[in-house]
Amino acid sequence: MELQTLLNDYQALSLKRNALGYANYMISWDSETEAPVGCFELRSQMVGVLAGESFRLSTCDETKTLINALYERIDELDEDMKKIIKKEKRGLDQMSKIPEAEYIEYSMLMSKSSQIWAKAKNDNDFEAFAGTLEKIVEFQKKMMKYLETDTLKGYDVLLDQYEEGATMALYDEFFKVLKEDLVPFVLEVASLPLDVKNTLENKTFSLEKQEELSKYLLDVMKFDWDHGVIKTSEHPFTSGFSSQEVRITTHYYLENLLFSMYSVIHEGGHALYELGVNSKYDLTALGGGSTMAMHESQSRFYENIIGRSYAFLETHYSKIQEIFKEELQDISMDDFFKLANEVKCSLIRTEADELTYPLHIMLRYEIEKLLLTDQIKVRDLPNVWNKMMKEYLGIDVPSDTEGVLQDTHWSGGSFGYFPTYAYGSAIAAQLYYAMAKDFNIDEALKTGTTEEVNKWLKMHVHQYGGSKLPQEILKEATNEEFNPHYYVKYLKEKYSKIYNIN
Amino acid sequence: MELQTLLNDYQALSLKRNALGYANYMISWDSETEAPVGCFELRSQMVGVLAGESFRLSTCDETKTLINALYERIDELDEDMKKIIKKEKRGLDQMSKIPEAEYIEYSMLMSKSSQIWAKAKNDNDFEAFAGTLEKIVEFQKKMMKYLETDTLKGYDVLLDQYEEGATMALYDEFFKVLKEDLVPFVLEVASLPLDVKNTLENKTFSLEKQEELSKYLLDVMKFDWDHGVIKTSEHPFTSGFSSQEVRITTHYYLENLLFSMYSVIHEGGHALYELGVNSKYDLTALGGGSTMAMHESQSRFYENIIGRSYAFLETHYSKIQEIFKEELQDISMDDFFKLANEVKCSLIRTEADELTYPLHIMLRYEIEKLLLTDQIKVRDLPNVWNKMMKEYLGIDVPSDTEGVLQDTHWSGGSFGYFPTYAYGSAIAAQLYYAMAKDFNIDEALKTGTTEEVNKWLKMHVHQYGGSKLPQEILKEATNEEFNPHYYVKYLKEKYSKIYNIN
Repeated sequence: MELQTLLNDYQALSLKRNALGYANYMISWDSETEAPVGCFELRSQMVGVLAGESFRLSTCDETKTLINALYERIDELDEDMKKIIKKEKRGLDQMSKIPEAEYIEYSMLMSKSSQIWAKAKNDNDFEAFAGTLEKIVEFQKKMMKYLETDTLKGYDVLLDQYEEGATMALYDEFFKVLKEDLVPFVLEVASLPLDVKNTLENKTFSLEKQEELSKYLLDVMKFDWDHGVIKTSEHPFTSGFSSQEVRITTHYYLENLLFSMYSVIHEGGHALYELGVNSKYDLTALGGGSTMAMHESQSRFYENIIGRSYAFLETHYSKIQEIFKEELQDISMDDFFKLANEVKCSLIRTEADELTYPLHIMLRYEIEKLLLTDQIKVRDLPNVWNKMMKEYLGIDVPSDTEGVLQDTHWSGGSFGYFPTYAYGSAIAAQLYYAMAKDFNIDEALKTGTTEEVNKWLKMHVHQYGGSKLPQEILKEATNEEFNPHYYVKYLKEKYSKIYNIN
Repeated sequence: MELQTLLNDYQALSLKRNALGYANYMISWDSETEAPVGCFELRSQMVGVLAGESFRLSTCDETKTLINALYERIDELDEDMKKIIKKEKRGLDQMSKIPEAEYIEYSMLMSKSSQIWAKAKNDNDFEAFAGTLEKIVEFQKKMMKYLETDTLKGYDVLLDQYEEGATMALYDEFFKVLKEDLVPFVLEVASLPLDVKNTLENKTFSLEKQEELSKYLLDVMKFDWDHGVIKTSEHPFTSGFSSQEVRITTHYYLENLLFSMYSVIHEGGHALYELGVNSKYDLTALGGGSTMAMHESQSRFYENIIGRSYAFLETHYSKIQEIFKEELQDISMDDFFKLANEVKCSLIRTEADELTYPLHIMLRYEIEKLLLTDQIKVRDLPNVWNKMMKEYLGIDVPSDTEGVLQDTHWSGGSFGYFPTYAYGSAIAAQLYYAMAKDFNIDEALKTGTTEEVNKWLKMHVHQYGGSKLPQEILKEATNEEFNPHYYVKYLKEKYSKIYNIN
């Protein structure tokens, strides 16, 4: 067959899959943000049918024949198309191993599970979610079997889903560096008091003002409102479809200013990544970001390295104080900066400070390993969780809402996702030192927007979308392989200053 | 083939079509309420692909064979299935006449047109919308040709799309009754001053308070929040998918309390209809309401007959005053009732009072007839509109925003829709007199909710969904054929009192 005919057929297939993906993206967005509770029974049926169509389209004989035909002639394709067909081939080989009926059943489960989790979390009722979680874990275990290869087995199969090339060996090694070089420092800092005159406690930050702050911060980040939306949901997230459309959410707590403030900057970072991808990758397998860790490196870059920096806060604190006139009148800039970087061992991952955060990730990583290697059962989770929290962070967990039920990830079937957060933070730190060689970041932030930072990241990271893996991006952007010691260095430099440690 | 096999095949087809319909429903809802402007280019491509799939599914040979096979054995089906297959056959015969490429092109146009219209309206720039509207009208004219039958030709083809059985003959006759029996009365009333101490002018009604009122009113109407959502959009509308899920919008104007208040009650009426349909019709061709006029009869019943009644307002005015403490302190209940029923010749259809409203409909009906019979062109519309407004309502149109660009309908390709509004109002009046024989409506409203009204309408109208036509519903509910004189009677009784006419 003519190569062009194959490419045209591929284009038609890709459009259909994208259209079904777009439908799913819209329905999921609605489910997470505003769908009334009574619609989910019928909705899950509809989602199941769409997922079935999507699955059929991706695994039917015509598609297999087409992808294999293109793969055989991969040398004749241009560079981007080579990468696309390689990804397709990899995906096809994986998809073909999952029985369609199970995939559909799982998709229908997924369309309801996040609501069930949200209710269980709200009601502090782990039992109400346990049955659903068992089904999800069961499916994950099946996935590990279905997708295993000669070189990839067990939990590594799942890790690889979120981070191509990442294995237990890599993460074990990475966390070892953190444990040895960082943990003693973290524990020292966490034991010290924060030197501030006043705190943000016992204050109320109205919804309207927090919404105003969100808009302001996204303006500072040069968020493109023509291609983006912000809304609220139970747990903040970013959902993008092509470089033309990205959506983020936050969650406002009246008594907690910093939670939404840094959620917005965090999700804003994800959004800038999506929007910054070269539009030639739209609707292709190379659209969106590189890997999960790379995505998290961007959100954490904006949230922590930029958003919690002295230069950023110094530039915007007068505006923040203007919005919260009464609430922040007794908080000086220096104190606000320290409060935004306060270190303490706490319960909630998404509220954890930059320094204790990796401990939360280690805990989840360890628990997932135990769960997926049958060393513990779903119903053991609350106990195991609480025990590890005591062991790693030295604190008691008063409720499952603040413990094992706090994260949305498992309800969405995301096992193997958590370690990418810590990995991403380390990537961010390495990028930071490379960026600092190119221009004075503090001076750039004092102009009032993050524009220069955006440009650097777009040039070195964002534009490539999924066409390069993190290792390649990092090598080109920093002239070095991944090196976790930058992460340790960055954290020690920053927190030594804040906590007066010599 | 076994009848049961045919029915199973039909069930599978129906599910697929519903899933695509559901996707379209979600994407449209998003487009109308929150989608960022920059996403529409790519979105219209995705919508086009989904519409293409939908079209193929509805018109492919397998579907034709299946529907025709079931139609041949229609005598063996149960009553509901008989109706479903009849509708399918009718739809199939119509769909088959429209070329697929044109349908897809039109669907893609539709996914962008409402945004183009909204911008043009906002900018008072008819020219910016004219090209799009020309394409829409062009397609409507083609539709008239494609779908014409021996008995149905020209504009009647479009009228029949929204109101099965309605023709120019019927509407011409209906409007003749109104012109002869009602118009002199309307003009008399419109010339009289309203006897009130204070007005609602030069007041500001905050967004938060208006939102609180919306929630209160929907509670009064027993709106089921577990299966419904309210949001804002350029123009209020209702969008439902099965009896399990319905969504309404309103539009808040800070200086206009009554607009959103009555929009919410109006759309709430549509929503109660959707939610009240027997759930056995969910995902079938008999789901949703009967016809457009029947749907409008329900929204207008709640908006005008209930919501603007003395008994309803008397019951809830203390709460309304509580919400708008300062704003309404100088407005007595009697004055509020009169202000909610003030008659004056005005520019905007959706803000028009109950009495002048039919004149706005007549104008649109006349213009559509002229446009679709090639007596005027799209670019003549502003002039023709303004001339007719002067002629029918005696007022000058200061801008296209307040004139020919005010309605969303044409941007959505809805030609033939408008007359159903007036027809629906007349149906509502006839239902009102029948209901009044069964119980004292004023006394029922004084209980604080519309529950008894809801029950009556659910029993006599809502539950049947699309399984009966208006004529049948009306005959069973009122023991009479459609009779427009009830409408005239209702309006004369009500407004004679308000304007002290003997």
